[in-house]
Amino acid sequence: MKEKIYKGSTKTLYQSDEDYALIMSFDDTLKISKDEVIEVSGKGVINNSISAYIMQKLDMIGIDNHLIEKTNMRQQLVQFVDVYPIQVHLCSLACGRYVTDFGMEDGFVFDSPIIDFRIKNKELNYPIINEFQIISFGWMSKYELKEMKNKAIRIHDFLAGLFATAQIRMVDIKLEFGRVFNGDDFMSMLVDEISPDTCKLWDMESNEKLCYEVAQDNPEKVIAAYQEVQKRLNIKK
Amino acid sequence: MKEKIYKGSTKTLYQSDEDYALIMSFDDTLKISKDEVIEVSGKGVINNSISAYIMQKLDMIGIDNHLIEKTNMRQQLVQFVDVYPIQVHLCSLACGRYVTDFGMEDGFVFDSPIIDFRIKNKELNYPIINEFQIISFGWMSKYELKEMKNKAIRIHDFLAGLFATAQIRMVDIKLEFGRVFNGDDFMSMLVDEISPDTCKLWDMESNEKLCYEVAQDNPEKVIAAYQEVQKRLNIKK
Repeated sequence: MKEKIYKGSTKTLYQSDEDYALIMSFDDTLKISKDEVIEVSGKGVINNSISAYIMQKLDMIGIDNHLIEKTNMRQQLVQFVDVYPIQVHLCSLACGRYVTDFGMEDGFVFDSPIIDFRIKNKELNYPIINEFQIISFGWMSKYELKEMKNKAIRIHDFLAGLFATAQIRMVDIKLEFGRVFNGDDFMSMLVDEISPDTCKLWDMESNEKLCYEVAQDNPEKVIAAYQEVQKRLNIKK
Repeated sequence: MKEKIYKGSTKTLYQSDEDYALIMSFDDTLKISKDEVIEVSGKGVINNSISAYIMQKLDMIGIDNHLIEKTNMRQQLVQFVDVYPIQVHLCSLACGRYVTDFGMEDGFVFDSPIIDFRIKNKELNYPIINEFQIISFGWMSKYELKEMKNKAIRIHDFLAGLFATAQIRMVDIKLEFGRVFNGDDFMSMLVDEISPDTCKLWDMESNEKLCYEVAQDNPEKVIAAYQEVQKRLNIKK
């Protein structure tokens, strides 16, 4: 086994044979609250398939990402990227804290997805951070931040369409980016995964949850929900 | 029959009972060159279905458009909009004149869709126009043009995803916009249609044409291609 570099709540990173690449392994764990992680047998295999499928499709609109190739059921070879310490959340529809905190009407569709940022820090419980702070802390340049926001909206819109034909409404999505040198210049590249662990996905008609949200009430139904997403996107197993 | 307002090469506009709305009727005609129009029996009915479906789906990402409702097999009630005299073309992949005129590699995927503009004028054969000209001619303000470009990219990306799940590559798309007053301010709104008449749609694997391009060599196969698009998007007849 290669040397373990990082163990997250749902994935583990290992060294690969190449300097420029890592092995990203999808675990069966699912975080359901700050301190609670459950085991969902088979989830890693499904998420690996879904995420690889989506990352490849993003090539169609010219959005580069860290995926080099899916190497086995649970693993991908991914490019080594200097990941920003930030999560980018995009939300297209008022729900959750948009209703409870901001008093918006449940289900209101925003003209443009709302972007907000959180620090990738579990101990601090992923605090919200704004653009001024990101720049002042020296984490990203103004230009990088602008480029990242543009890419995030493009990814959001493409995936909203991709899921729409599968009769799924993508309500929100969490993205992560990092800095890579493309030979001439530094650029922001999409990293991490895109799967039912990182998006709110609801059935278009019934609003039935087809994502990590299922785990809150029905942890035994998580696998069926994730399989349904895989099936509707016509992803071969 | 209501009074005819405008007869285009593939659609006819009529007055409606309401001041703020028009009836847009999808004809069976298809323009295959500057002066040649062929009749494709049943095309109008299919395009009306596809375009209404797509316009409704655009609501999911907050993109307003002129569709009020599909009223019958061939017709839609649409909002009256002061249409800009401009076509907006977005292309995600080098083909056609990108290869012949610019010497690009066939099939090269652009980082971001390339936008160009043409004047909606059949007699002049739809001349290319640039952003400086659009503004200098007083057709749009700088702000309107910027807003329109942003919306055009969002529509492009959403539809690229929507077609991708249907195993279709959207190679390019022609959009039209116009100015409406929303009660507070003027804004740019998507008008016209989105259908195999206005997009290059190719099968993802075989590159088989599923759009108006079929007519050049196989006019008798146009209907089957359009039906295939309707079927793959799961649009009920």
